[in-house]
Amino acid sequence: MSYLDENAIPLSIDLYELTMGASYHALGMDGRATFSLFVRSLPPGRSFLVVAGVEDALRRLENLRFDERALEYIATLPQVRPDFVEYLRSFRFEGDVWAVPEGSIVFPNEPVLEITASIIHGQIAEPVVMNALHYPTLVATKAARCVLAAQGKPLFDFGLRRAPEIDGGLAAARACYLAGFSGTSNVLAGKVYGIPVVGTMAHSFVESFPNERLAFEGFVSTFPHRITLLIDTYDVLMGAQHVVEVSRKFAGTGKQISAVRIDSGDLEALSRQVRKLLDSEGLQDIRIMASGGLDEYEIDRLLRNGAPIDSFGVGTRVVTAEDAPVLDMSYKLVQFDGRPKLKLSEGKRTIVGAKQLWRRIDTTGLYAEDMISGREEQAPDDGEWLPLLRPMMKAGRITESFDLEEARRQHAREVERLPSHLRDIHSVGEYKVTLSSQLQERQRLAEEMIAQEEGLAAKPQR
Amino acid sequence: MSYLDENAIPLSIDLYELTMGASYHALGMDGRATFSLFVRSLPPGRSFLVVAGVEDALRRLENLRFDERALEYIATLPQVRPDFVEYLRSFRFEGDVWAVPEGSIVFPNEPVLEITASIIHGQIAEPVVMNALHYPTLVATKAARCVLAAQGKPLFDFGLRRAPEIDGGLAAARACYLAGFSGTSNVLAGKVYGIPVVGTMAHSFVESFPNERLAFEGFVSTFPHRITLLIDTYDVLMGAQHVVEVSRKFAGTGKQISAVRIDSGDLEALSRQVRKLLDSEGLQDIRIMASGGLDEYEIDRLLRNGAPIDSFGVGTRVVTAEDAPVLDMSYKLVQFDGRPKLKLSEGKRTIVGAKQLWRRIDTTGLYAEDMISGREEQAPDDGEWLPLLRPMMKAGRITESFDLEEARRQHAREVERLPSHLRDIHSVGEYKVTLSSQLQERQRLAEEMIAQEEGLAAKPQR
Repeated sequence: MSYLDENAIPLSIDLYELTMGASYHALGMDGRATFSLFVRSLPPGRSFLVVAGVEDALRRLENLRFDERALEYIATLPQVRPDFVEYLRSFRFEGDVWAVPEGSIVFPNEPVLEITASIIHGQIAEPVVMNALHYPTLVATKAARCVLAAQGKPLFDFGLRRAPEIDGGLAAARACYLAGFSGTSNVLAGKVYGIPVVGTMAHSFVESFPNERLAFEGFVSTFPHRITLLIDTYDVLMGAQHVVEVSRKFAGTGKQISAVRIDSGDLEALSRQVRKLLDSEGLQDIRIMASGGLDEYEIDRLLRNGAPIDSFGVGTRVVTAEDAPVLDMSYKLVQFDGRPKLKLSEGKRTIVGAKQLWRRIDTTGLYAEDMISGREEQAPDDGEWLPLLRPMMKAGRITESFDLEEARRQHAREVERLPSHLRDIHSVGEYKVTLSSQLQERQRLAEEMIAQEEGLAAKPQR
Repeated sequence: MSYLDENAIPLSIDLYELTMGASYHALGMDGRATFSLFVRSLPPGRSFLVVAGVEDALRRLENLRFDERALEYIATLPQVRPDFVEYLRSFRFEGDVWAVPEGSIVFPNEPVLEITASIIHGQIAEPVVMNALHYPTLVATKAARCVLAAQGKPLFDFGLRRAPEIDGGLAAARACYLAGFSGTSNVLAGKVYGIPVVGTMAHSFVESFPNERLAFEGFVSTFPHRITLLIDTYDVLMGAQHVVEVSRKFAGTGKQISAVRIDSGDLEALSRQVRKLLDSEGLQDIRIMASGGLDEYEIDRLLRNGAPIDSFGVGTRVVTAEDAPVLDMSYKLVQFDGRPKLKLSEGKRTIVGAKQLWRRIDTTGLYAEDMISGREEQAPDDGEWLPLLRPMMKAGRITESFDLEEARRQHAREVERLPSHLRDIHSVGEYKVTLSSQLQERQRLAEEMIAQEEGLAAKPQR
């Protein structure tokens, strides 16, 4: 992300992190705290989440510095004490971070990322890691569902124009690629992340010529490689006919039309008609790309109905995570100064202490169940359990190198391990997640103890 | 937006803008084109849109430069011709832009922003202006609905952590403030846009003390101004009781608790109970702030039921535009080389030519109807019609200075002019938008002419 100004990061926090930090600082409270980030429940229609943004979260934490411009501004805020502004001058994040690897599949209430740091550091990290993970995880999850629906056919991210802002477009392109897309239209994502960039043509290009055929000829004559022509500006079948004519005209010149794109109308019927026409003209090699308002449901419908579509340009609905734009993501204090911590009032469970997340793989190699344990616990005895949380940052330094291509491959391997009832995009599948018996006991004691300290009757937590 | 790297902007485009540009360049096509940005239909539940992002769109266009790093990368793309890379070296956007002012209320199919430039420039501008307007307009629209629901009570943006990325959080804070929010928790938005920043405390602060009362005492003792205490970490009524005790303890010290915040549970019932308790203890001056999953519907419900809530912290649902995260926003070629242009195939109307948008104000000062005309047409004779599109950029230079506070006031005046059937958040109100007779005729002729040129039967456009 070399194109984004690192100096925006430290100020992109909630004021209350600074006011609470100032209070802790003034009171001399610098005990060690553990915070846990998790998603309480899945958005509608989802059976799993694909975690994205971990790498960015770590990078933001590692680079968190309050420069002079930032400090000057903070000093003007009446809510922040001057001694704390001085403290921030030498601030650098010194926490330890455990997290699941980028692209991991996770389920509700599972720890995704845990930070152990002095409480001021852990508090300042809150908006940093939440902001870094929330949006990319939404997009990666939606994109992974599109990949499941596409049955191996390539998908391309065309979402930049309706993605949220410039770094939203960048993060979306990355999340889609991580989840298995084959490329993006976003040139910046190509530059920053090395994602293959793709492009075709727009309706305006066709319209700017006296007629469609001349537009196609113009484009083919000047476009060097892998030519895709957009054929729905006026009439798709006439567009396909123009492709045939232009293809003949350039025959033997080395110029080759490799695909046509249909961006509107009844994609199923039109793709059949276009395929038939191209085939009848001996142009079996020209592929058909579909785009325009696509999501996992539409891709699934088209392919199940046998539409002869070879690839998909997917944009708006994925980069806005249209049907599920919010994750019930939380970042909660779970331990402080060696004591378990949790919030009681809401009846929502926060699982205390630093944890490990275990996944059991069955004998066929598929996910069987997950178990959440204390961080220090060993793997259960029965079967093959993999620990998912890994140490990724030590004393503020990233300890695990990251490679997007490897994360993408690792994610693909994880998807292969998804049981079939979780792969169905049309129904929500259940997955077993339990707490280790040690952790259950620790949780029970913590809930009792905190209720007692606050003079409350212990309530059963859901 | 001084904190964002300007160099990210030129690369944050779709590859096809570059490949089409390369084709135009190779073919020597540099005719003057007009592109129009509009929203085809309103998202579900909406009666109007609040435009945001115009200022940013203009700024991005004015600063669009392909620096050496960008050009080096573009030169590696096999789809872009080397001569076009050279062309980009001296590129600077030279178009003219007309747009509605930031914060304007608009309706479907109305021109929001129109660019007239050489076709390569107009094409490169596409992802720039779409990306700049799409997300902020969604958020400003949702925020304006919250403001309508809040009946004058202050609203604060608490959405940073679940906003999309860092500049999404910044844009959301700005869009909310433009739409009438009173402040934001986002420190960067305070720095960059001068928006008042606010903050309270988090549950983790309370949890990190041996008990809630000690946490409140610690915070009050160190927090200098406008103290707000979060009272729902364990039990809201006990929290309120602790506020009473701490308030007594600090009586006469100059420290004053100005508000309590309730972030979970039954906000209506709890706010009544807390109000009653505080009043009975003579603490009528302590205000009640509510937060946690709020949107316009919940704010409206709470206030209609008479919940004694004085202000609202609104976050996730607004910054994700949760119930309507997509705008059917288009950027279409409408004129090229002096001839009207439009896409026919989809049956979706694109209104040809450079346009003006007129709004008639009735004798009571309310919006009565809108009319879209050719850019060159005069105001209609009947009644008071205001032209909404203004020239904002000439030959690539911004010609209109911008002030966020003034735009916010102007937006508030526009909302006052909304007829009551458009102010109801629970029903979708219709608003009359027509085309001038001249424009209707121009459109009819253009549709006929283009169909004829393409050898198609003229189809009636919807």
